[in-house]
Amino acid sequence: MNDTSGHALGFDAGALASAAIASQPAYAPGEQPSDGGWLKLNTNENPFPPAPAVVEAVRRELGETGASLRLYPSPGSNALREAAARFHGLTPGNVLAGNGSDDVLNLLVRAFSDSSKPCGMLDPSYSLYTVLAGLNGARMMAVPVDIEGRFDADAVSGCGANLFFLTNPNAPLGVAIPQETVRAIAARFPGILVVDEAYAPFSGADAVPLLREFPNVVITRTFSKAYSLAGLRVGYALGAPEVIALLDRVRDSYNLDRLAQAAGAAALGARDYYAGVIEAIRLARDQTTDRLRASGWRVLPSQANFILAAPPPPATAAGVFAALKSRKILVRHFPRHPVTAPFLRISIGSPEEMRRFATAALEAAAI
Amino acid sequence: MNDTSGHALGFDAGALASAAIASQPAYAPGEQPSDGGWLKLNTNENPFPPAPAVVEAVRRELGETGASLRLYPSPGSNALREAAARFHGLTPGNVLAGNGSDDVLNLLVRAFSDSSKPCGMLDPSYSLYTVLAGLNGARMMAVPVDIEGRFDADAVSGCGANLFFLTNPNAPLGVAIPQETVRAIAARFPGILVVDEAYAPFSGADAVPLLREFPNVVITRTFSKAYSLAGLRVGYALGAPEVIALLDRVRDSYNLDRLAQAAGAAALGARDYYAGVIEAIRLARDQTTDRLRASGWRVLPSQANFILAAPPPPATAAGVFAALKSRKILVRHFPRHPVTAPFLRISIGSPEEMRRFATAALEAAAI
Repeated sequence: MNDTSGHALGFDAGALASAAIASQPAYAPGEQPSDGGWLKLNTNENPFPPAPAVVEAVRRELGETGASLRLYPSPGSNALREAAARFHGLTPGNVLAGNGSDDVLNLLVRAFSDSSKPCGMLDPSYSLYTVLAGLNGARMMAVPVDIEGRFDADAVSGCGANLFFLTNPNAPLGVAIPQETVRAIAARFPGILVVDEAYAPFSGADAVPLLREFPNVVITRTFSKAYSLAGLRVGYALGAPEVIALLDRVRDSYNLDRLAQAAGAAALGARDYYAGVIEAIRLARDQTTDRLRASGWRVLPSQANFILAAPPPPATAAGVFAALKSRKILVRHFPRHPVTAPFLRISIGSPEEMRRFATAALEAAAI
Repeated sequence: MNDTSGHALGFDAGALASAAIASQPAYAPGEQPSDGGWLKLNTNENPFPPAPAVVEAVRRELGETGASLRLYPSPGSNALREAAARFHGLTPGNVLAGNGSDDVLNLLVRAFSDSSKPCGMLDPSYSLYTVLAGLNGARMMAVPVDIEGRFDADAVSGCGANLFFLTNPNAPLGVAIPQETVRAIAARFPGILVVDEAYAPFSGADAVPLLREFPNVVITRTFSKAYSLAGLRVGYALGAPEVIALLDRVRDSYNLDRLAQAAGAAALGARDYYAGVIEAIRLARDQTTDRLRASGWRVLPSQANFILAAPPPPATAAGVFAALKSRKILVRHFPRHPVTAPFLRISIGSPEEMRRFATAALEAAAI
């Protein structure tokens, strides 16, 4: 076993890198421990398994011998796009499938931003937007949002971005944006307005009716949260066919594999199963919120599958984070942003997991 | 069901597109018919199923209930990278896993080209390189290669590219480049030299020994051809750790799903199975070559899992292509390139499939 780095005498890979990449930090995803025993409440995963129909669809595609895997998948993820179109009352031409919604977000940045076409976002929201813009050599116009989720809608319309990410519900705040606010922004924003609805199934937010009025609106959805398929990488965009066609030019021809396509299409058909999953998560979310609040925590009203919660002083977010980690409970702390620094972001697990979390968190905050 | 395009009054999505994307044509993959009965010899898929150990690994990851799918995959595809490192006698730091090798090629273009850092390629070779460069706003320096696979190695070194794609064996020609030529180019080319070894398992080509000497060399490999996993989208790059680290900055955090990671790692362990698969394909390739040549076809000496073959005049490639298609046999014709226009590219199927193909092709050419 030989690492080649010892041979790199005088070789400077960074000097060969493209201008946008040379100075770009990588996105830091939430920790994924590979050893067992952890209670993972740090990446907004779903505590429940996917619907039985999803597993059945994967098995069917795999077959006895995996013979179908020798063939390239549908380049356009056709069955999945048809299922998404049916689900939302649209046509397949309104849908682009992605290898997770992160793939879709990257395609949006590449298609609709460059060094003279900035991106925009609410700050704080999903930190990946900034990374994707930087990799594409585009500036990021940040419109501040306060801890209650309030922001200046006129500042969005006038921020100068060509592509704006409106996360609804917001992550990491968890608060939802009223439909009338989204609508007002869609009507006035002169570029492509992306309504990132990764957490929408937990809130009922749905910008699809706006698509019919505003061809500059694109909605992104993921199967990683509500559909328990973070491990399979499936997401999609909804938009006007001419916008979808531009995204298709940048898309890898075979961006979703056969098993992911089959799983995604099946998941959209399992409405009753997922309605139950979502209801259970909302209930656990609200119970956890009540329990923490009863002990003096500040917990923001969440419409997502996570809560943002600050322990009562003198306990600190950093202190509780460390205490939880020492008990193999992982949550997320964003210490570098002044809005989020006092808080922990806690993904909602099963009722039993949330009891374990709350007991440990209340103890840690009381020390 | 409502298509939103009717509402797009006065909306011009193209005017909002980034400069590089607005004028960019999409890559055209080989046709993927969705109805049955086709003999697909058009996208260099493998006629044999993946190894039983691969299917077993996917089933194990899926489990009874698919519960692991609710969790994000290993961001770095760690088990797969370790398997690839073992396979090639390198370390995981030398490996980057991709959602197919097309993903890896895209990351290379994004990391090492821009409007002032051109790409380069042999012409003809894989047409995706040109699409990826265009999407990144980079020029493409084309070094001509003739039908025997000959090209001017000095022209590669001096072409001004910052990133050069050397496809070995060449596609669509099928001819392999001698290791000494690859070595001479690696020693003199001042940028990143990508040796695209998508078809190398069929030829024995292997640039790994060059990695130890030349930190500017990156090797790309795919599971779509030799490993019968085109449907699962798995590939990887091998290179110096500092080059891999730059690619990692551009890579999506979770670019490979759990099932694809498990399948790829298992495939690299099934050496005996795939040695048999590769031998069977080489045998069918050589038998098909002999049979066509015996009827007056010109068939290039292939080191890949396809052949480039021209029917004897007055038969034409276009005529035989159409005649085969009318019998539900799909091959590939690249009529727009003067080097490839007289030829058909025929993927090698099973011995039985190749008999069916050859019989139909010889009949079509004789009419």
